[in-house]
Amino acid sequence: MKKDRLEAFSDGVIAIIITIMVLELKVPHGDSIEALFPLFPIFLSYILSFIYLGIYWNNHHHMMHTCQKVTGSILWANLHLLFWLSLVPFATGWMGENHFSALPSAVYGIILLMSAVAYFILQQFIIASQQPDSLLKKAVGNDWKGKISPILYAVAIFLAFWWRWGSIGIYTLVALIWLVPDRRIERMLTAKD
Amino acid sequence: MKKDRLEAFSDGVIAIIITIMVLELKVPHGDSIEALFPLFPIFLSYILSFIYLGIYWNNHHHMMHTCQKVTGSILWANLHLLFWLSLVPFATGWMGENHFSALPSAVYGIILLMSAVAYFILQQFIIASQQPDSLLKKAVGNDWKGKISPILYAVAIFLAFWWRWGSIGIYTLVALIWLVPDRRIERMLTAKD
Amino acid sequence: MKKDRLEAFSDGVIAIIITIMVLELKVPHGDSIEALFPLFPIFLSYILSFIYLGIYWNNHHHMMHTCQKVTGSILWANLHLLFWLSLVPFATGWMGENHFSALPSAVYGIILLMSAVAYFILQQFIIASQQPDSLLKKAVGNDWKGKISPILYAVAIFLAFWWRWGSIGIYTLVALIWLVPDRRIERMLTAKD
Amino acid sequence: MKKDRLEAFSDGVIAIIITIMVLELKVPHGDSIEALFPLFPIFLSYILSFIYLGIYWNNHHHMMHTCQKVTGSILWANLHLLFWLSLVPFATGWMGENHFSALPSAVYGIILLMSAVAYFILQQFIIASQQPDSLLKKAVGNDWKGKISPILYAVAIFLAFWWRWGSIGIYTLVALIWLVPDRRIERMLTAKD
Repeated sequence: MKKDRLEAFSDGVIAIIITIMVLELKVPHGDSIEALFPLFPIFLSYILSFIYLGIYWNNHHHMMHTCQKVTGSILWANLHLLFWLSLVPFATGWMGENHFSALPSAVYGIILLMSAVAYFILQQFIIASQQPDSLLKKAVGNDWKGKISPILYAVAIFLAFWWRWGSIGIYTLVALIWLVPDRRIERMLTAKD
Repeated sequence: MKKDRLEAFSDGVIAIIITIMVLELKVPHGDSIEALFPLFPIFLSYILSFIYLGIYWNNHHHMMHTCQKVTGSILWANLHLLFWLSLVPFATGWMGENHFSALPSAVYGIILLMSAVAYFILQQFIIASQQPDSLLKKAVGNDWKGKISPILYAVAIFLAFWWRWGSIGIYTLVALIWLVPDRRIERMLTAKD
Repeated sequence: MKKDRLEAFSDGVIAIIITIMVLELKVPHGDSIEALFPLFPIFLSYILSFIYLGIYWNNHHHMMHTCQKVTGSILWANLHLLFWLSLVPFATGWMGENHFSALPSAVYGIILLMSAVAYFILQQFIIASQQPDSLLKKAVGNDWKGKISPILYAVAIFLAFWWRWGSIGIYTLVALIWLVPDRRIERMLTAKD
Repeated sequence: MKKDRLEAFSDGVIAIIITIMVLELKVPHGDSIEALFPLFPIFLSYILSFIYLGIYWNNHHHMMHTCQKVTGSILWANLHLLFWLSLVPFATGWMGENHFSALPSAVYGIILLMSAVAYFILQQFIIASQQPDSLLKKAVGNDWKGKISPILYAVAIFLAFWWRWGSIGIYTLVALIWLVPDRRIERMLTAKD
């Protein structure tokens, strides 16, 4: 039951984050097509962040599926992840309003990097709470996605100051890599049943 | 259980969308009746969108009732639907603030059309995940509402540039058509029991 | 299960309404005690509305407890109730910012009156969906609170234009009357078990 | 079931409070590093409040675990707690925007103190609803954290006018004290099983 409440709380926070992000798309004053133009980069950054938050919700869902009990460490590691995710709307709005300029794009990458680190920490605490033959441990054993993402974020953060579109391209690429849910966990769960 | 979490997340997002939409009704500075007048079109568009989101929540509820398992495709098709619904408050506010002028009314229709398309895609993925004698497939077999709505939205989008009230009239008409929950699914479920 | 989702959705909407209402308490620019003074009437109106929404959540909870199945009418009557409740933050902010002046105080009463009417309609649909010996019907049989509240709201709405504090006094009085949860339903449920 | 709904509602409200708090981190207009500087104190106060709300959610979770039935008093004591927690984003934003100056830091402490008092009242009502050998009563028997926190808040409120960093230091210290979940309840629950 405890796990249910942690999941419900995380779902609630992610649902709110994903929805208040749209408040950055401020209603323009005019009713001409020109009034919409300044919103275009904000809209693009909204799409990107919506996908990222969808990926986190989805993977969080899969990972918690393997979690048997919620320890204090797992609870706080989960809040730590939600903390970084809660900064996504800010970074999204700042990047969008400044047309993907250098510093905002780098800050966006830092938030993504810190979220990935927080997700990794949460994963380690869940594995630590499980038996040595942990299902999750096996599933993430050769987790190339989880290993390559932080490296790509780090590259993108530095690239933002030289070639911003390369940076945005990397963020988009990582999102596409993750769009496929982690089938290994699903496969193992199926194999177990 | 997986389905429960998808439903809970969707409910959460729709509940937040429907509620933050009211933030477009900004508190006026004066306390006279005149101070309320500019809010009247925003209030009307709020009512219309509230009904639309209520319809989506209701129909989503009915459709998920027939869904046995959540595949990756269903999960992302559902997030895709929530994405378009999350743009409803923006389109509502823009249309209301501009007194249902041409472009905002057309954009409102585009958001409704894309939501309908996203709902259709989700429906198809759910049917694809079911047996050939899928209950949902039968239920939507002669789904005239689902077929006529996108056509009416498309007409309304173009009409917005010629006769805006015709456009708004169509949006209202489609809302009224859908206000009745999809009794076919209910009937089939009853018949099955 | 259907009822669970209706309750969860209603809880979500009421939780969001009660929380976004605090956004009307805008952070003042200065850090002196004088900077807080203009917030005082908004704070008072926030307390009043917080109690009202708490009452609605509580009574909604009790009423849904007696509801066996959710019909289409109940679903829409519930959304209708949520619609009027969603306007409470607007009315609260307007009344607070204008120091309980006549029109905003009257509008606040109108929202409360319409919420009470919507609650009554929902109650009637739930009773209609039940057996003639409906538990809820008996419980609300001599529901003097439910009968006197709309009358008091109507009085307060007109009084707002003559003596605003009388109006606010009535809103406060009705809140106090309702603060006690409807023990009749509880008693009947206990008696039934 | 009743308890579930109270927990779900409380989770919802706390999830919304923790998330709308980030709206105080307003997207700056420029894209330079200087544009971020004014946000730094707001960011620090956001971290502190995020931890406090996480602590309340966590401890609320543990406490409700021991609660067998929800009385009217528990329900309203819980809403009373949520009321004070709902003011945390306001106090956080005010304190952050004014760089932890005297009055805002004192008001922040008052909100924390009132939340602690509300939590204590809720705890007492839950104990009162239980048998004399209440598990919760034993667990909080020598609850030094619960006893020392209000005293420390009171000290910090007065200290804010003389030495603001001492005040902030105390708020941080209390947060650190509470970061460890109340293991006594966990231990007793384990012992009981």
